Amino acid sequence: MTTSDPSTSATRPRPGGRSARVRYAVHRAVTELLAEDAAETLTIPVIAARAGVHATTVYRRWGSVPELLGDIASSRFSGEVVVPDTGSLRGEVVRGGAQDATDLADPDVLKLMRAAVGTGPLGCEACVADRHAQLTAILDRERARGGDPPELERTADLLLGPLYYRAVFIDRPAGPDWARDLVAGLLG
Amino acid sequence: MTTSDPSTSATRPRPGGRSARVRYAVHRAVTELLAEDAAETLTIPVIAARAGVHATTVYRRWGSVPELLGDIASSRFSGEVVVPDTGSLRGEVVRGGAQDATDLADPDVLKLMRAAVGTGPLGCEACVADRHAQLTAILDRERARGGDPPELERTADLLLGPLYYRAVFIDRPAGPDWARDLVAGLLG
Repeated sequence: MTTSDPSTSATRPRPGGRSARVRYAVHRAVTELLAEDAAETLTIPVIAARAGVHATTVYRRWGSVPELLGDIASSRFSGEVVVPDTGSLRGEVVRGGAQDATDLADPDVLKLMRAAVGTGPLGCEACVADRHAQLTAILDRERARGGDPPELERTADLLLGPLYYRAVFIDRPAGPDWARDLVAGLLG
Repeated sequence: MTTSDPSTSATRPRPGGRSARVRYAVHRAVTELLAEDAAETLTIPVIAARAGVHATTVYRRWGSVPELLGDIASSRFSGEVVVPDTGSLRGEVVRGGAQDATDLADPDVLKLMRAAVGTGPLGCEACVADRHAQLTAILDRERARGGDPPELERTADLLLGPLYYRAVFIDRPAGPDWARDLVAGLLG
């Protein structure tokens, strides 16, 4: 997964070797604990014990449970954070929205997101940071092409707002087609 | 607080006396525990002990932590669930949206909501049930007047979606004026 935000990439795993094994073990431990509805006991010592790693390793790498949950939730996102340049604002926003819709329809992603939200503002922000970075890149590119795209804030409100609301709050995730209608409403 | 949904009103408190005192004590206990960032230990025995009531009383009245958190979150909502009939669809939707925006800007409400979301789908749904009931009443009334309002689903997506997204996920709750712009986008 690539991102242009250095503050986010600092918490990303380095590929291969021990580091990748630790990451895999920790991600699996969290997913298992959530599947057991053990959300109320989701602390770093509990996660580390389940993963068979030292708690200090988890603290050093992720800092806190909210950041860890957010990292796992976004690592489950399909597709690229940076949508390829197709020359079409509409096409790229639809593609991003359809990816979001697909990911939010995954029950494991939803479980992770709700647990992250439950940890407070940091966990909430971690659930959407990659999506904001994705939209920012798309809109910047359109501006560089000389286009006049909507502001990031408005785009996030009207695209990510309904997508997250449906999936998280009313448990009826939208389909990718539905994202197309949202984009039509946004871009006219 | 009134609602037309009997399944919701069954969990509502009866006014006055011991029942009201229990409700007050339990609500206060949860609010205190959340303020202490003790979300991971938010179980019914812990809440009951803090409130000085029997755990069975809490189980009998609220059933589970998600339902309790949702009840408290919605009891913090300002204003009426049923927006008064003004004869104007736009005016009523704006009024409902402005109430939502105001409530979601309250840090205590947000804390309760995030904790409720963290408990799973039941807690998530409890955060929005009153808001759905409010929109349903407004749209039904417009239909009874012979109007042709948007569908509930679309209204919730485009009004509640952005409001909850901003408040819960990016920690930048919208102002009541901003709700007016959203409604303009929805009703044309």
